[in-house]
Amino acid sequence: MRAADYPGPFAALVRELRRLPGVGPRSAERMALWLLDDGERPTALADALAAARDGVRQCAACGFFAIEEKCVICLDDDREDLLCVVERATDILPIERSGAFHGVYHALGGRLSPLEHVGPEDLHLVELTSRLERGAFTEVILALSTDVEGEATANYLSDLLAPRGVRVSRLAQGMPAGGGLEHADELTLARAMAGRHRAGGGELAPGQKGG
Amino acid sequence: MRAADYPGPFAALVRELRRLPGVGPRSAERMALWLLDDGERPTALADALAAARDGVRQCAACGFFAIEEKCVICLDDDREDLLCVVERATDILPIERSGAFHGVYHALGGRLSPLEHVGPEDLHLVELTSRLERGAFTEVILALSTDVEGEATANYLSDLLAPRGVRVSRLAQGMPAGGGLEHADELTLARAMAGRHRAGGGELAPGQKGG
Repeated sequence: MRAADYPGPFAALVRELRRLPGVGPRSAERMALWLLDDGERPTALADALAAARDGVRQCAACGFFAIEEKCVICLDDDREDLLCVVERATDILPIERSGAFHGVYHALGGRLSPLEHVGPEDLHLVELTSRLERGAFTEVILALSTDVEGEATANYLSDLLAPRGVRVSRLAQGMPAGGGLEHADELTLARAMAGRHRAGGGELAPGQKGG
Repeated sequence: MRAADYPGPFAALVRELRRLPGVGPRSAERMALWLLDDGERPTALADALAAARDGVRQCAACGFFAIEEKCVICLDDDREDLLCVVERATDILPIERSGAFHGVYHALGGRLSPLEHVGPEDLHLVELTSRLERGAFTEVILALSTDVEGEATANYLSDLLAPRGVRVSRLAQGMPAGGGLEHADELTLARAMAGRHRAGGGELAPGQKGG
């Protein structure tokens, strides 16, 4: 005899579930067992997958998820004249949820990465500059990754946008909220130190900073 | 303005993914984003769900997952004449994978639970006794949970099967493999102590045991 295993379609479902981010072999098996425990469950999930695949598209303006041509953010008339540039559409909701920004967004579709052959022509830069020409934005906020490629992309965008006279800013870098010093890496600490401000508010004068 | 959220079909997909065992709100969102990042992915998962739902059934004999009327275990002619009784079909593969059992199985479909109104008539007991009448099993091994309801079910089955002259055994209880004493609960320790055997093999004589 040989040790039995799950039948083919079951094993195929486990394989598909394992592709999901954060799902290991054990949890994929547990999910498949749970799904097949009630005939309604695989149908409900399959229907939701089809509906999301067919019903969700990219906003023509900013790249966020949309049902119509434009997303709810771009259609919202109460937004401020601020444009927040992010790498991916998925970066938009975390900023929305922070409640700290009330403008609109522009997803680049990635960032400059010579190693991965991603150049300026691969990002939505033409769309960005044409939006800036059409719209009356008072400020462009670059909310990009804080690694080397994100920094390079931010520098490239700063140079690109400088001649347009629009104010270009970047997110502050420093200690993450709720994190103790013992958990911060050296680069984070160095940037938090370089960006330090006067206790009680206000920036230090440039000469008082070390960096 | 109000903070934007994902469009309806996306949120519905997140809700469905959250129903999966072990999936919290963050990971459901991450899965949905990953799925919608490539149009092939929701289709592949939806197809696998439909194929598993339509192609996998319960073995008519033992209750394990099957494609035909009987599962690969019941169709395997090289199995020994041992019948292992488990609560659920999902208990079968862990035993198969242990490599320690080479007989066939019988899933009860649950266990006795007065609190949940599960009585003997709710379990596949008629099927069990008729299998024992038809088949020439040398031993029935009760591989049930070690909690109160599993114990009660095992006792009920022992009484039910006693008149049939078949040998009925139960899994050993004791320390789990690889676990230190400091991680074992008191009941596990008590059962491991009561079931202790002579170092080097062999059981102690009944009088030498405490319990």
